Amino acid sequence: MSYFDAASAAPLHPVARQALSAALDDGWADPGRLYREGRRARMLLDAAREAAAEAVGCRADELVFTSSGARAVQTGIAGVLAARRRVGRHLIVSAVEHSSVLRSAEVHEGDGGTVTRVGVDRTGAVDAQAYAGALRPDTALAVLQSANHEVGTVQPVVEVAEVCRGAGVPLLVDAAQSVGWGPVEGGWSVLTGSARKWGGPTGVGLLVVRKGVRFAAREKEEFGGLPAIVAAAASLRAVRAEADREAVRLRELTERIRVRVPALVPDVEVVGDPVRRLPGIVTFSCLYVDGEALLHGLDQEGFSVSSGSSCTSDTLTPSHVLKAMGVLSEGNVRVSLPLGATEEDVERFLAVLPGVVAGVREKLGAPVAPVTLVRDDVLVVDALGRRCPIPVIELAKVIGDVPVGGTVRVLSDDEAARLDIPAWCEMRGQEYVGEEPADHGSAYVVRRVS
Amino acid sequence: MSYFDAASAAPLHPVARQALSAALDDGWADPGRLYREGRRARMLLDAAREAAAEAVGCRADELVFTSSGARAVQTGIAGVLAARRRVGRHLIVSAVEHSSVLRSAEVHEGDGGTVTRVGVDRTGAVDAQAYAGALRPDTALAVLQSANHEVGTVQPVVEVAEVCRGAGVPLLVDAAQSVGWGPVEGGWSVLTGSARKWGGPTGVGLLVVRKGVRFAAREKEEFGGLPAIVAAAASLRAVRAEADREAVRLRELTERIRVRVPALVPDVEVVGDPVRRLPGIVTFSCLYVDGEALLHGLDQEGFSVSSGSSCTSDTLTPSHVLKAMGVLSEGNVRVSLPLGATEEDVERFLAVLPGVVAGVREKLGAPVAPVTLVRDDVLVVDALGRRCPIPVIELAKVIGDVPVGGTVRVLSDDEAARLDIPAWCEMRGQEYVGEEPADHGSAYVVRRVS
Repeated sequence: MSYFDAASAAPLHPVARQALSAALDDGWADPGRLYREGRRARMLLDAAREAAAEAVGCRADELVFTSSGARAVQTGIAGVLAARRRVGRHLIVSAVEHSSVLRSAEVHEGDGGTVTRVGVDRTGAVDAQAYAGALRPDTALAVLQSANHEVGTVQPVVEVAEVCRGAGVPLLVDAAQSVGWGPVEGGWSVLTGSARKWGGPTGVGLLVVRKGVRFAAREKEEFGGLPAIVAAAASLRAVRAEADREAVRLRELTERIRVRVPALVPDVEVVGDPVRRLPGIVTFSCLYVDGEALLHGLDQEGFSVSSGSSCTSDTLTPSHVLKAMGVLSEGNVRVSLPLGATEEDVERFLAVLPGVVAGVREKLGAPVAPVTLVRDDVLVVDALGRRCPIPVIELAKVIGDVPVGGTVRVLSDDEAARLDIPAWCEMRGQEYVGEEPADHGSAYVVRRVS
Repeated sequence: MSYFDAASAAPLHPVARQALSAALDDGWADPGRLYREGRRARMLLDAAREAAAEAVGCRADELVFTSSGARAVQTGIAGVLAARRRVGRHLIVSAVEHSSVLRSAEVHEGDGGTVTRVGVDRTGAVDAQAYAGALRPDTALAVLQSANHEVGTVQPVVEVAEVCRGAGVPLLVDAAQSVGWGPVEGGWSVLTGSARKWGGPTGVGLLVVRKGVRFAAREKEEFGGLPAIVAAAASLRAVRAEADREAVRLRELTERIRVRVPALVPDVEVVGDPVRRLPGIVTFSCLYVDGEALLHGLDQEGFSVSSGSSCTSDTLTPSHVLKAMGVLSEGNVRVSLPLGATEEDVERFLAVLPGVVAGVREKLGAPVAPVTLVRDDVLVVDALGRRCPIPVIELAKVIGDVPVGGTVRVLSDDEAARLDIPAWCEMRGQEYVGEEPADHGSAYVVRRVS
């Protein structure tokens, strides 16, 4: 098996495992107690905090451990919003943040606060000027990830931090994807991380609040297990020691995928910034492919990857990141290489991918009930009740029958069509005219340009 | 070393350690993913949930894991309060709940809700009729522990659940101290537990919400590490397998302490219900002893215990449990035996305790600046600025000088005196007249009866 989903959860680093095992003997007691076992636990906790703080680049008393990265985000956002309530209740986030950030934003709205969601360009990056434009006198907090978890694009944290600092607004950086690679530069105020992203155990997050930042903690430091914290800190140090060399190696491997997938597989869009990106993540989308079938096919070939396609998630809506970028979501694959991923595995992935994609396309391209008709002189593709990627497949089939300059209407009630039909037009050089309400679902109008 | 503080955190059970180690290999991936590693993690999670549910006596789909016992309490209380907001915002708790429950109650009050705190008798037990009396038409939730964490007293959960059920009010039972011993009987609605109390790893709590109970979850299931969950479930099963036999054995050992400590050490009060109590916990308080010095002395002799005395906590206030019971808090010691505690260790504890207590008393009884004077014909003990247990020590020194029927005033600004002077009177058969405001602190008036 080749596990290529390190951005979800990295396999436990060997150092984490050793540290965990050792800490189980000394770290089970309550570190708040005065007796021997408690003092020993307290020493372990303090040492882990020192080590993590050094890696993050902060003071030990600015860092607390939490029970997960999501909890760090939640506590961090809530803590600043509560402390700065008198300033106002306006929160700025980017549209491509992790779901834990967006969830906190929704909760804030539910409690009567207001939220501005800053959009991104087609690479997934925000613009510092967009943050500047979003700042208001009542802005309590701005949030920005250090790098995107789905497409790997690195965000302009230094620039955004400067803009926020100029306005006296604290910036919280969700550094979950980048803590293992190095400290976050720039004048951020609050920072969050998650141990399982760098090869530490699950159940450990970290929350850094710079001295001088107003922060209202609703509860004492709360963390999962102390042995897990010790393992998290030890593995962070180990990962950092090899980070520079490993970054060069993984960047070369993901670059291979970026360059060769479009040559190997027809109708593919590689997404995310080609240069300003994390070393280990590469994401692409394949037209006319169902994401779930693709993941299943890759799993059978021994590759574990994830997908932002709608059909692979519980919610049946495509990834909010791909949506915000305005890129294709169908047949989406995120490859995120763990430390130590081998060239052989990547080559084998490139070798099997074309066959897996072709297999899925063949199955989906098989004759389906006729769905096109001509109504009032306009060609109509009736894809109602059909799930992604059928609407786009049927559109591609009929576009040749549309006279140049003429239009075709695609009827669809699949949420993914709203994203994928415009993305298909962009890829194919056709004109996306717009969406119109229909009796059921929507009608997506496309004009044939060439 | 003899670790006698299992009620804070039990040492990791050997089965937990084995299970944790095995689960590190198979349980690091995201159980929500579709590929092999994710499916394997999901299977481990489901199996752990099944095992824990069987031990608790509920359906697997009624149980979720949380990142700690405190988090289970917090989520459980908030979830019912939110779901039943239309019924009302009244919450009932007992005065001797764990601090996590009392903290949730304070948060609820801060958010505009109302809270009734039901008192306890001198053994620490609540009365079901007191809960009946506290119920109101706008009561959203009642909370009661299965057994008290400081004195071991078992609460009448079955009776209180019946009273609540009659009024249509859900009862949340904080079963942290008893889950390892057996299922909680009675018609409770919500139940919480903490793995580190039964010998599982830290960082795992459980929250059970019975089908049909209205509950608003603000977030998805959130837990620490999956390996820790697997270890928690495995150790719960292992602990339960030996629970009946171990309960008999530990009960005999704590009974020895209950009976022999008052014979070995003068001026001791053993607190908590002598019969309806947890097998492994016994708590006593020693007059004229400073809790911190006592713990330090016992630690030097190799015993790790905890204390509800004011001088041993950060807050400098005595344990809210001892306060609610109206018993002595000074020189307080809680012995909570872990599974497997040996007779030899207990005998050694009984052998060293008298010397340790005597040593502390000797140090504190050493000449101090004269603090008694006669003012307006009344004997006044000026203990202002002096910390527990000095006020009580000075009171005991002068009571012989007070004529029978006469009174003595003790001036003190130590919060513990408010609890300990009445408790001393109760123990010594003297009359506690009451507290009066003084220029500094308070004057506690005691009448000599015999």
